[in-house]
Amino acid sequence: MGSTRARIAIDAMGGDYAPAEIVAGAIRAQAELDVEVILVGDEEQVATALKQHSSQEKLRIVPSEGTIEMHEEPLSGIRRKPKASINVAMDLVKQKQADAVVSAGHSGAAMAAALLRLGRLPGIDRPAIGALFPTMDASKSVLILDVGANVDCRPKFLEQFAVMGSIYSQYVLEVEKPKVGLLNIGEEPCKGNELAIRTHERLEKNPLVNFKGNAEGRDVLSGDFDVIVCDGFVGNILLKFAEGIGEAILQIFKEELPQGLNGLVGTALLKPNLKRVKQRVDHAEHGGCLLLGVDGVCVIGHGSSQAPSVYSAIRLAKEAVEHQVIDRIQSRTTIAASSSQESE
Amino acid sequence: MGSTRARIAIDAMGGDYAPAEIVAGAIRAQAELDVEVILVGDEEQVATALKQHSSQEKLRIVPSEGTIEMHEEPLSGIRRKPKASINVAMDLVKQKQADAVVSAGHSGAAMAAALLRLGRLPGIDRPAIGALFPTMDASKSVLILDVGANVDCRPKFLEQFAVMGSIYSQYVLEVEKPKVGLLNIGEEPCKGNELAIRTHERLEKNPLVNFKGNAEGRDVLSGDFDVIVCDGFVGNILLKFAEGIGEAILQIFKEELPQGLNGLVGTALLKPNLKRVKQRVDHAEHGGCLLLGVDGVCVIGHGSSQAPSVYSAIRLAKEAVEHQVIDRIQSRTTIAASSSQESE
Repeated sequence: MGSTRARIAIDAMGGDYAPAEIVAGAIRAQAELDVEVILVGDEEQVATALKQHSSQEKLRIVPSEGTIEMHEEPLSGIRRKPKASINVAMDLVKQKQADAVVSAGHSGAAMAAALLRLGRLPGIDRPAIGALFPTMDASKSVLILDVGANVDCRPKFLEQFAVMGSIYSQYVLEVEKPKVGLLNIGEEPCKGNELAIRTHERLEKNPLVNFKGNAEGRDVLSGDFDVIVCDGFVGNILLKFAEGIGEAILQIFKEELPQGLNGLVGTALLKPNLKRVKQRVDHAEHGGCLLLGVDGVCVIGHGSSQAPSVYSAIRLAKEAVEHQVIDRIQSRTTIAASSSQESE
Repeated sequence: MGSTRARIAIDAMGGDYAPAEIVAGAIRAQAELDVEVILVGDEEQVATALKQHSSQEKLRIVPSEGTIEMHEEPLSGIRRKPKASINVAMDLVKQKQADAVVSAGHSGAAMAAALLRLGRLPGIDRPAIGALFPTMDASKSVLILDVGANVDCRPKFLEQFAVMGSIYSQYVLEVEKPKVGLLNIGEEPCKGNELAIRTHERLEKNPLVNFKGNAEGRDVLSGDFDVIVCDGFVGNILLKFAEGIGEAILQIFKEELPQGLNGLVGTALLKPNLKRVKQRVDHAEHGGCLLLGVDGVCVIGHGSSQAPSVYSAIRLAKEAVEHQVIDRIQSRTTIAASSSQESE
C-alpha cells in the first residue's frame, strides 16, 4: 500500500440506489473506518449526491463515462465501454492508485472487469465469490465459496477455493486453523455427485487445507465449519435462498406476533430484542461478497445495497486490504499449483 | 383400492424413535384420519408399544424380521434381508393388501425397496423425492423435487419431475394450473449450468407443464411457484439447509427474545403467537417426502420423526392414495415418454 489508510475505489454508479446511497455509505465509511474512499462515477451526479450531506469529509471523485446496465451481457459491456465506472475503478487498483474496488452494480460485469483488468492470481484457474453467512454462534461467520462465479466446476477449482477461503478465514477473520467442509448430501466420502466425490479425495490430501469432511445443508449455519466450498450453482442458490428465507421468517413474525391485545403489547415490549434478532439475521450487516483469486481486492455488493450495506462492503474491503489477503493467497496458491499439475 | 378407507402400511421399525413414536403416530392417524394403518415390524416389540396406549383403535400387525440399519448400504441391505420391515411393507402394496407405504427409516433403503419391489412407472427414468416447503403465503406450499434421489441428473429426468410434480400439485394440493419453475441462478433462459440450460429448453416445449421459467433461490418460498424442479444434489442441500436455518432462527429468537425484564414479560405475552410462528416454520407439520415415479404411494419420513411427524406422513400418504396420484402420473407420463423418445 502506498499510504497507511486503505484506499477504496467505489463504483458510485452501480446498484439500484446509485449514486445517492453509495455516496451516503461512502461518506460514513470514510468518517468512521479510517479509510480513503474514492468515488468513481459521473462527476456531476456524484457531486450532486455529495452536496446532500453536511459531512466535513472530503471524498475524491474520479470521473467515468457510463455504466454497465443490469440487462447487458457482462463481457461485451465491459469491452464496449472502457470508461464505464467499474472499469475505471478496476484501473485505479491496477495502477496502484487504489487498494480495493467495491461495487454494488452488475456483479457479472464486476467479475468480468476484474478478470480483464486485474487478471487471475498465479495458480488460480477460476476466481470464486465468497459470502459470509452468520451462524448459530453469534461470534462466528462461515465463508461459503463459490456463490456464483463458476456454475460448472472441476474438482481442482473447488480445491483452490478451499485454499483461498482458508487464507481469508485465517488472516481476516482470525480463525487459527479454519475448519473446511465440502458441501454435500451425506457425511461419508462416497456420498454426493461426481464432482463432490472427486473433490473430497483431493481435499483429504491437500496439506494447505484443514479438511473436516462433508458439510450437509443443515451444517452450514451450525458454526462447526469456518469455510465451506461448493460450485457456484449450488452456492448461489443457497445464498439467495438464505436471503429469501430470512425475509420470509421475518415476514411471518411480522404477521403473527402483533395479533391480539397481548400480541400488540408483547411486541412493543420486545422491540429492542427483535431488533437484535434482525441484526443477527440481516444480510445488510454482512455487506458484500469477496471476489477471491483475482490480483486485487474486490468486494461485490448486493444490487439493492443502501448506505448500511455499502458501509459494510467498504469495511470488508478494508479488512481484506489490511490483512494482505492477495499477497497471502498468491504465496500459497503458487505452491498448490505446482503440486497439483499432474491431474485436474 | 380394495376398501374405501386407504390402507397405509407403516414401517414400525424405521426411524430414531421406532417403534414407540411410530406406533403413537399410527394410532392417532387411524383414530382421526379415516385410514386403516398396518404396522409392519417385530411382533413383540410392536405389541408392547401398542400396549402403552389406552386407545380403542385396533391396528393390524404384519410381522417382519430385522431392519436396514442407517449405516448399511441400501441396495445390498434390501437384498440380504428380504423380510426386513421396509421390504415387507412394500410387498403389501405390491400384493394390493395396502395402498401406501410410510417409512421414517433409512431413506436410501426405502427408495431401493420401492424400486425393486414396486418398480418404476412406465415413462419414468428416475423416481424423485418431492418435499413440500411452506411459503410466505400461509395457505400455500411449494413442491420441490428432486430432494435427494438422483444426484447426477439429465434434462429429461428433470422434465419428468416437472410432469409428476404438476400432477401432484393439481390433484392433491388442488392447484388449478400449477406454476412450475426450474431452480436456477438467474431469470434468463441462458443462465445456469449446462443441465439447467438444457432443461429450460425442454420445459418450454412441454405441453404437460405450465412452465413459468427459472426460479432463483429467493423465489423458492415466495409462493410464486407451485412446483420447482432441480437435481437431487441441489434439492437435498436446500432441504437440509431449510431445516437448519429454521432451527437456527428459532434458536436466535430463543436467545434474544427473553432478555431483560421487558423481554421476559413480552415473550410470555406472545407465547400463543410464537407457537403459531413455529407451526408455520416447523417441518414436522409437513410430514414426510413423497417418492414419485414408482408404482405405489411411498412417503419417506424424517429419521427423527416423532408421533406428530408420523401422523402428518400418514396424512400425506392418504391424500396421495385418495387422489389416485399413481394412476394419474401413469396415464400422463406414458404420453410424455412417447413424445420425447427422440432425444434425452
